[in-house]
Amino acid sequence: MSSTVGQVIKCKAAVAWEAGKPLVIEEVEVAPPQANEVRVKILFTSLCHTDVYFWEAKGQTPLFPRIFGHEAGGIVESVGEGVTDLKPGDHVLPIFTGECKECRHCKSEESNMCDLLRINTDRGVMLSDGKTRFSKNGQPIYHFVGTSTFSEYTVIHVGCLAKINPAAPLDKVCVLSCGISTGLGATLNVAKPKKGQSVAVFGLGAVGLAAAEGARIAGASRVIGIDLNSSRFEEAKKFGVTEFVNPKDHDKPVQEVIAEMTDGGVDRAVECTGSIQAMISAFECVHDGWGVAVLVGVPNKDDSFKTHPMNLLNERTLKGTFFGNYKPRTDIPGVVEKYMNKELEVEKFITHSVTFSEINKAFDYMLHGKSIRCIISMDA
Amino acid sequence: MSSTVGQVIKCKAAVAWEAGKPLVIEEVEVAPPQANEVRVKILFTSLCHTDVYFWEAKGQTPLFPRIFGHEAGGIVESVGEGVTDLKPGDHVLPIFTGECKECRHCKSEESNMCDLLRINTDRGVMLSDGKTRFSKNGQPIYHFVGTSTFSEYTVIHVGCLAKINPAAPLDKVCVLSCGISTGLGATLNVAKPKKGQSVAVFGLGAVGLAAAEGARIAGASRVIGIDLNSSRFEEAKKFGVTEFVNPKDHDKPVQEVIAEMTDGGVDRAVECTGSIQAMISAFECVHDGWGVAVLVGVPNKDDSFKTHPMNLLNERTLKGTFFGNYKPRTDIPGVVEKYMNKELEVEKFITHSVTFSEINKAFDYMLHGKSIRCIISMDA
Ligand SMILES: NC(=O)c1ccc[n+]([C@@H]2O[C@H](COP(=O)([O-])OP(=O)(O)OC[C@H]3O[C@@H](n4cnc5c(N)ncnc54)[C@H](O)[C@@H]3O)[C@@H](O)[C@H]2O)c1
Ligand SMILES: NC(=O)c1ccc[n+]([C@@H]2O[C@H](COP(=O)([O-])OP(=O)(O)OC[C@H]3O[C@@H](n4cnc5c(N)ncnc54)[C@H](O)[C@@H]3O)[C@@H](O)[C@H]2O)c1
Ligand SMILES: [Zn+2]
Ligand SMILES: [Zn+2]
Ligand SMILES: [Zn+2]
Ligand SMILES: [Zn+2]
Repeated sequence: MSSTVGQVIKCKAAVAWEAGKPLVIEEVEVAPPQANEVRVKILFTSLCHTDVYFWEAKGQTPLFPRIFGHEAGGIVESVGEGVTDLKPGDHVLPIFTGECKECRHCKSEESNMCDLLRINTDRGVMLSDGKTRFSKNGQPIYHFVGTSTFSEYTVIHVGCLAKINPAAPLDKVCVLSCGISTGLGATLNVAKPKKGQSVAVFGLGAVGLAAAEGARIAGASRVIGIDLNSSRFEEAKKFGVTEFVNPKDHDKPVQEVIAEMTDGGVDRAVECTGSIQAMISAFECVHDGWGVAVLVGVPNKDDSFKTHPMNLLNERTLKGTFFGNYKPRTDIPGVVEKYMNKELEVEKFITHSVTFSEINKAFDYMLHGKSIRCIISMDA
Repeated sequence: MSSTVGQVIKCKAAVAWEAGKPLVIEEVEVAPPQANEVRVKILFTSLCHTDVYFWEAKGQTPLFPRIFGHEAGGIVESVGEGVTDLKPGDHVLPIFTGECKECRHCKSEESNMCDLLRINTDRGVMLSDGKTRFSKNGQPIYHFVGTSTFSEYTVIHVGCLAKINPAAPLDKVCVLSCGISTGLGATLNVAKPKKGQSVAVFGLGAVGLAAAEGARIAGASRVIGIDLNSSRFEEAKKFGVTEFVNPKDHDKPVQEVIAEMTDGGVDRAVECTGSIQAMISAFECVHDGWGVAVLVGVPNKDDSFKTHPMNLLNERTLKGTFFGNYKPRTDIPGVVEKYMNKELEVEKFITHSVTFSEINKAFDYMLHGKSIRCIISMDA
């Protein structure tokens, strides 16, 4: 048994003291896990747009100092009271949204929107006692989406940890914590293209490329990538995207361009942009009779989805998904197995890697649109 | 072999000479069926809103003289060249939309929107030669949706005829040609409630009551009927509707009323009104995580479906259906079998019956909202 069990651990964490200011590597104190909590030693973490978005804090009430980070791989250091599913030494991926296994959503086969542990970006404290487990010289430091993986040790609710195959390399599968699984699941679990069908992917960021990877795995015959930024097209070829459309190159709506390319519309469309215009185009570009469009991107507060109801009556389906409809504890271990079986290629999403002390570089890569995923090694 | 084969048949038909004017029973001439056509002796027909709508011809280019009627049961009198699926004596239901079995829609498991024989309310002639098979003293009389069942004999494309069990009573199963199958299929084929789930039905006309009947057959635990006209509620109890909401009785949107009644939303909703407001409410009243809303009603040309995209991202599904997603030739015989097996109750939809000479009474009953379905007997 580790000598740290039940003790406060002092370790390094990258603290965001202020909105938009570089993170500072600090020595922080990490309290032991309370009931239903687990303390995890993080080995690798990666950066996702959501971290950057809340660090910039342009749209929300700022909550600082805070430890960001929600894509990671680690090993259980110790567990709190009542935790039976995990033990020290288990390999885990933290997930920003949880699975309590008790609520109506967790009991439904279809939903992953757990009532207890659904993502909450405003909460900076643990559920059980409303307190933080991080502090520096007695000053509390807030958590982020229940994960806070930009720290050598972190405390996470057991419901937000997927126990994975210990043979899986954590420096690779850590990217399956969020964006990659979101795009992959949007295609495989929700759009569900049949072998030989055509798939349009709107937005070729990490999430859209993962949606394209899902289409490749499903055996799609054509994968049409749509992005306003044509510089994304070269990279996207590696992800099975076979054709490209930049809406700016056409003087008619992109849904009409796609309908012409495909004799009436694609079989499936997956929207990964957050743009309401792309959401409407993704829906209207699917074929009548059987087309399915899936929305993934997070819209603005005052957006309105508008379409003529005949587009629906002509037997199109419109769905949205959250985290690719994966249940974190039940399903994510299986996604890791897809990588282990060589069905899913994860390496091509990893374009950069840095040491923990260089974490601000990962922010730069993302802000300049250079990286898909940048891996941050905690022990280097 | 019948002596009428290959001959022009003189028979009675109810002709609409002018928009909105009572039909007139006339002796008309019915030409023999051409290639891929079938001449059918109609025994029973019923009246649907769509007949009344095109007879009133308020919204469309009027096409007169015309023989309306599209819900019916009959017997094949003779077949044209190339017809191998049907022979004289077969019992059939004419269907306003067809199934060619050759096009991409017919070959898709999911779609019933045949490219060749999809409903066309503007066309008053046969597909093969652009001519009518009806005439009076040499004056052509137009067809309606390829069926024109308000005639003792009519000519129909073989793709628009469902061959049914000859033991099925045509005076009952004739109502399965259109509205009843539409509502039933919307629930059973598209909304697909699981046993014990809750279902909201918007609009308690014939289509909505059939959607409720589908919910009863599927084993729904609660069927909530929503209508602006509270006089519909008493009748709806016979169709398994267990609770009623009139949006006019509440000062908040009906989707909020339903969410409160059901701890967050119903599992399934089926809209059978044609009102865009009801379509939006039907979508927004389903539970996040797993709720499915199905649109059936035919909207106005300039309607726009509007909702906040978060309603979709929270894992709701929105679909539309046409003729309950039934393929006319492949699936409608099975709907008749559901009636024969006593799974589906058809009698309760039949509130009135008249003789052919009294056909204008059927219009009156419908216009005054008195009937669900009125059966018109051709031989009486
Ligand atoms: N639902 C979830 O669970 C979940 C999880 C993670 C991310 N997301 C969301 O997925 C979306 C994509 O995330 P990402 O990290 O890949 O973002 P990203 O910014 O890296 O990529 C988005 C891409 O969309 C393109 N784009 C923007 N507007 C467009 C338009 N109108 N038409 C075509 N292309 C357009 C951009 O040029 C960009 O290349 C975001 O909205 C994000 O918030 C959702
Ligand atoms: N998709 C198809 O294949 C198909 C086939 C047949 C009929 N339809 C359509 O289905 C719809 C229903 O047909 P029907 O014959 O049952 O019509 P109906 O007129 O008999 O019934 C409609 C009911 O909806 C109610 N209603 C209207 N607006 C409402 C609102 N905002 N909220 C609640 N209730 C409202 C009315 O009071 C009425 O009782 C029509 O739009 C019709 O065109 C579609
Ligand atoms: Zn739960
Ligand atoms: Zn993320
Ligand atoms: Zn067809
Ligand atoms: Zn009808």
